[in-house]
Amino acid sequence: MLKVAVIGTGFIGSVHARNVARHPGVELAAVNDANFEFAKKAAAATGAEAVADVEEIFDNKNIEAVVIATPTNTHVDYLTRAAKAGKAIYCEKPIGLDYQEAEKAVSSVRETGVPVMLGFNRRFDASHAAVKQAVAKGEVGKVEIVQLTNRGPQPPPIEYVKVSGGQMRDQTIHFFDLLRWLTNDEPVEIYAIGGALVSAAIGEAGDVDTSIVSLRMASGALCQIDSSRRAAYGYDERIEVFGSDGMVESRRQNFRGMALYKGRTVIEDGMYPGWFERIESSYYQALDAFLQSVNQGTEPSPSLEDGLRAQLMADQATESLRTGRAIKLPA
Amino acid sequence: MLKVAVIGTGFIGSVHARNVARHPGVELAAVNDANFEFAKKAAAATGAEAVADVEEIFDNKNIEAVVIATPTNTHVDYLTRAAKAGKAIYCEKPIGLDYQEAEKAVSSVRETGVPVMLGFNRRFDASHAAVKQAVAKGEVGKVEIVQLTNRGPQPPPIEYVKVSGGQMRDQTIHFFDLLRWLTNDEPVEIYAIGGALVSAAIGEAGDVDTSIVSLRMASGALCQIDSSRRAAYGYDERIEVFGSDGMVESRRQNFRGMALYKGRTVIEDGMYPGWFERIESSYYQALDAFLQSVNQGTEPSPSLEDGLRAQLMADQATESLRTGRAIKLPA
Amino acid sequence: MLKVAVIGTGFIGSVHARNVARHPGVELAAVNDANFEFAKKAAAATGAEAVADVEEIFDNKNIEAVVIATPTNTHVDYLTRAAKAGKAIYCEKPIGLDYQEAEKAVSSVRETGVPVMLGFNRRFDASHAAVKQAVAKGEVGKVEIVQLTNRGPQPPPIEYVKVSGGQMRDQTIHFFDLLRWLTNDEPVEIYAIGGALVSAAIGEAGDVDTSIVSLRMASGALCQIDSSRRAAYGYDERIEVFGSDGMVESRRQNFRGMALYKGRTVIEDGMYPGWFERIESSYYQALDAFLQSVNQGTEPSPSLEDGLRAQLMADQATESLRTGRAIKLPA
Amino acid sequence: MLKVAVIGTGFIGSVHARNVARHPGVELAAVNDANFEFAKKAAAATGAEAVADVEEIFDNKNIEAVVIATPTNTHVDYLTRAAKAGKAIYCEKPIGLDYQEAEKAVSSVRETGVPVMLGFNRRFDASHAAVKQAVAKGEVGKVEIVQLTNRGPQPPPIEYVKVSGGQMRDQTIHFFDLLRWLTNDEPVEIYAIGGALVSAAIGEAGDVDTSIVSLRMASGALCQIDSSRRAAYGYDERIEVFGSDGMVESRRQNFRGMALYKGRTVIEDGMYPGWFERIESSYYQALDAFLQSVNQGTEPSPSLEDGLRAQLMADQATESLRTGRAIKLPA
Repeated sequence: MLKVAVIGTGFIGSVHARNVARHPGVELAAVNDANFEFAKKAAAATGAEAVADVEEIFDNKNIEAVVIATPTNTHVDYLTRAAKAGKAIYCEKPIGLDYQEAEKAVSSVRETGVPVMLGFNRRFDASHAAVKQAVAKGEVGKVEIVQLTNRGPQPPPIEYVKVSGGQMRDQTIHFFDLLRWLTNDEPVEIYAIGGALVSAAIGEAGDVDTSIVSLRMASGALCQIDSSRRAAYGYDERIEVFGSDGMVESRRQNFRGMALYKGRTVIEDGMYPGWFERIESSYYQALDAFLQSVNQGTEPSPSLEDGLRAQLMADQATESLRTGRAIKLPA
Repeated sequence: MLKVAVIGTGFIGSVHARNVARHPGVELAAVNDANFEFAKKAAAATGAEAVADVEEIFDNKNIEAVVIATPTNTHVDYLTRAAKAGKAIYCEKPIGLDYQEAEKAVSSVRETGVPVMLGFNRRFDASHAAVKQAVAKGEVGKVEIVQLTNRGPQPPPIEYVKVSGGQMRDQTIHFFDLLRWLTNDEPVEIYAIGGALVSAAIGEAGDVDTSIVSLRMASGALCQIDSSRRAAYGYDERIEVFGSDGMVESRRQNFRGMALYKGRTVIEDGMYPGWFERIESSYYQALDAFLQSVNQGTEPSPSLEDGLRAQLMADQATESLRTGRAIKLPA
Repeated sequence: MLKVAVIGTGFIGSVHARNVARHPGVELAAVNDANFEFAKKAAAATGAEAVADVEEIFDNKNIEAVVIATPTNTHVDYLTRAAKAGKAIYCEKPIGLDYQEAEKAVSSVRETGVPVMLGFNRRFDASHAAVKQAVAKGEVGKVEIVQLTNRGPQPPPIEYVKVSGGQMRDQTIHFFDLLRWLTNDEPVEIYAIGGALVSAAIGEAGDVDTSIVSLRMASGALCQIDSSRRAAYGYDERIEVFGSDGMVESRRQNFRGMALYKGRTVIEDGMYPGWFERIESSYYQALDAFLQSVNQGTEPSPSLEDGLRAQLMADQATESLRTGRAIKLPA
Repeated sequence: MLKVAVIGTGFIGSVHARNVARHPGVELAAVNDANFEFAKKAAAATGAEAVADVEEIFDNKNIEAVVIATPTNTHVDYLTRAAKAGKAIYCEKPIGLDYQEAEKAVSSVRETGVPVMLGFNRRFDASHAAVKQAVAKGEVGKVEIVQLTNRGPQPPPIEYVKVSGGQMRDQTIHFFDLLRWLTNDEPVEIYAIGGALVSAAIGEAGDVDTSIVSLRMASGALCQIDSSRRAAYGYDERIEVFGSDGMVESRRQNFRGMALYKGRTVIEDGMYPGWFERIESSYYQALDAFLQSVNQGTEPSPSLEDGLRAQLMADQATESLRTGRAIKLPA
């Protein structure tokens, strides 16, 4: 029985704790949170031990793996300490708030040789994964256009936005990662436009809430990503990969299968109300992939390197937003 | 240039006249209607000659083919006379009001040897035809369940209903034909239930406006047909063929491709408002098949025999409605 | 903390045990199975106590509610004993193998006054429940046609079929219940045709694997139910309620949202491979409704009475299958 | 009876000729083409007179309106001459090959005061028009993101590409017009990336066949347009307008309604094979709008001004493709 601890038991940390607890062949040994009440609550729900001092987790030789789900500004610290303690690590995205900080952390973690998986869970959504598989099998031929949509459902609190690093680093970063993963390719040109169309407060904080990023990949493929902090009709996430032989998509999905035919219309159930309902199951799949890597001694994927790359793209897109100019990168 | 005349230029006759007029390699030579004003109107719209006396058409040796689109109670008369005059005939369904009358007419027409096609135009709807083709290719394996839906949009005038022969003979007959065609099989058992749920007047006239027919085919396949004279959401026609290896359907089709995402719903455009909009294009395809048969000297299909079979099924279903008993037929 | 025991920990019993275990405010106190190894396995997965003798459960005053998920032929026995012991009961459908046995059991259970809910879980499927809600709100007006489809994915083992009471009592019974629930109405006429189109062994056992049931309800509404033991494309369950003002459906649902556009086709992900994946979440919702009833002292629904009614319909449909005649019932 | 002539009877000119011929209340008086054989063919199909010298049309006082469907490089010439002759004009897009030429022509046409409609027929597609109507009614609130897709089915001949003015002026121009029309807004920033991913010959001719254009509108709304000269799965055109209150789309439309359920997939009919099949009906609707304007003496729309604006956007996008820089425009 692999013993696992979860550090950080806010919303997503609690999801991870429950998933560890129900995963066969694994034991949720301990949970920790800067707010001990949160840890106790997660412990009660899962049967794990609540630990007040995270050092107990790092010192416990029986705990082989940790999930880091703390606020972004603490990732680098926990990541470094957990790596030094020799733990296998599942770390929520992003690695850090800026690329420099993240790169330094990655260097130091690499020296320890511990396996690390970065929490780009969307790769594990069943429909997205089926798209990736179709592309990898060559079903659409050579990739030419990728279209990624992510919207809503509502802006986070302005306090969160202020420390989030901006829409590119906080929200769009998932799609920078999906783009690299889907195409197995790297960007050579990034251009972004955006505005604070949803919330004046977001604009005053120097951020955008609505944006379009255009990218050219080394292969010549073109990509567009549209992001919005608010979709009045629920959470809307969509992937489309168009190539020389066809097109494959991960479609919008209605939250139920009811439809009402009235007058001149068909009224269907709409989107999932929130992002979590839409992609909830991908968290378990991501954790499962991590645990398999740990058990089999294989390299986890998405890797820290993937995290760095997406972070760099987010920085470059932020720079383009600021300057109004396309950023050209070496192929 | 094959010269064609259209006899009966009411709603559907006018559609046939326009289709003949725009069909390449064919000339619409003459149009006739018991109401000469109707004939003149159709003539003006197509450039054909309006003929007051139908005998002129039968006597005209240059006219090789006729389309009969007169009221049902005159079909047998025109059919017999056109056959005697040696014309190739496209005749609107049904052959007659009852099976006995129809069978007698068919015998007399057969003696003349003229080619006759019966206007079961739904066989020529592109989606229905694709279903037939898939079934014929064995895509669904051995057929086990057929489900046919036909609804609305609103009841015909009660005067029409009174002389129509009833819902089975007037409306459901198209689907009796589709069933035989799709399965290449014949019924051995028919059971029908129905009621006047839409219109009390239809009930008082001894007819039903809502019904379900269950059939067992010689192969063992089972079928259900639901018919309604009124669908509040437009015209709804659907085919589903389920077999040992899969299922194929001709789906409900929205009349446009607009969709609005609001709140917790997706509001799509609905069904076509009327049956004609939904199946309009099949009339041209049916006419085209008829003209090809005439030109190539092949046997037109659907044949008079198909017309008789469907008429018999309609009579039996009407009998089952009346008695509440299943009608068993020899395999 | 309401203490609950699960009796019978085969496939569905284990599902119930897991659901009780993860339901907040409830404790899974004990599990029992005629095969003690099964009970121990369920206990290990949930942290409950495995109990070798079911009497320990009935005798334990701390256990207020039981879930009965044993084989059908033992339902009446456990139901009666649990009722005498004063437990609230969630009982898997059907009540018994035939109506007489079931009715006797229901009489004796009623004398005890314990709350009993029958496990017609499909009522709790989110999409089906949305259809019910739309109908109840009058969205489709007066109900005229109900169409229910349930197919596949593959026949159960022939040993199971032989003791199942036949397709009507084992499979179609869920849809008899759905029909009554959706329409809030009772049947006055039942007619069924069927055959052993999938499995000769099922035919030799005197049962059918493919069937169509036609029903007329007291209100005049008509209904058709098609059932098949095998759908080559996964599990296919569908509801359609057509009324004077529109139509509402619980649609086929693809198991994922991937679609591939190639050549002249769009290749979508298909149905869920099995019935359990399709309706899994309804088991938790059903249990939740039961627990709410117990906590609030309200009458659970679906009730034993609902179970009896569906069982009677299944008996009548079986009789119609046998005789080829429609069964007329008093309105 | 308004008398109309069609000048240029290639593919699209012949479509216009047929549409004029079947439009009630209008007479197709004459057809002309630089290649007289083409004119004779169109005349035979419609009953109009084939005219060898276009001056006969301009001189004929009975002809009040002309449709110009000649090659792009002759538009300005015919437009100017037809205007001088006092004809009402329906002119195929674009006005000319470059903005300067077009602007000069527009000035000279305006002096004559004749009504001119520019052939941006996509505005008249039923689904697109329903999107426009929904946006105009405020169904989606304030527009924030517009996404336009137009792909395939295959590249035109390289000779055509060489004189077409490039992908922006020849293909994407329709979508520049749709964008202005849908948003009732003007661009303030345009950025385009593209490549010759489909055809090396197109690249050698200095053009692109795959491109993404990003635009910011004066209102702040953002837009992305992806264009490809080849979609392996048919013709793919799609509109999506996302706003503060919801989203509305003109969806991909399958060419038929057949679907086959096999194994783990649903195989639907795909897209229309070509652009013409998809938008054919919009040509008649556009012509109808033109004829109504002429009859009622109202200003036709889309106007020459609309043509100029779209042409300017195409020039700017072409400039961005060339320089790799965003083009900023005064709001």
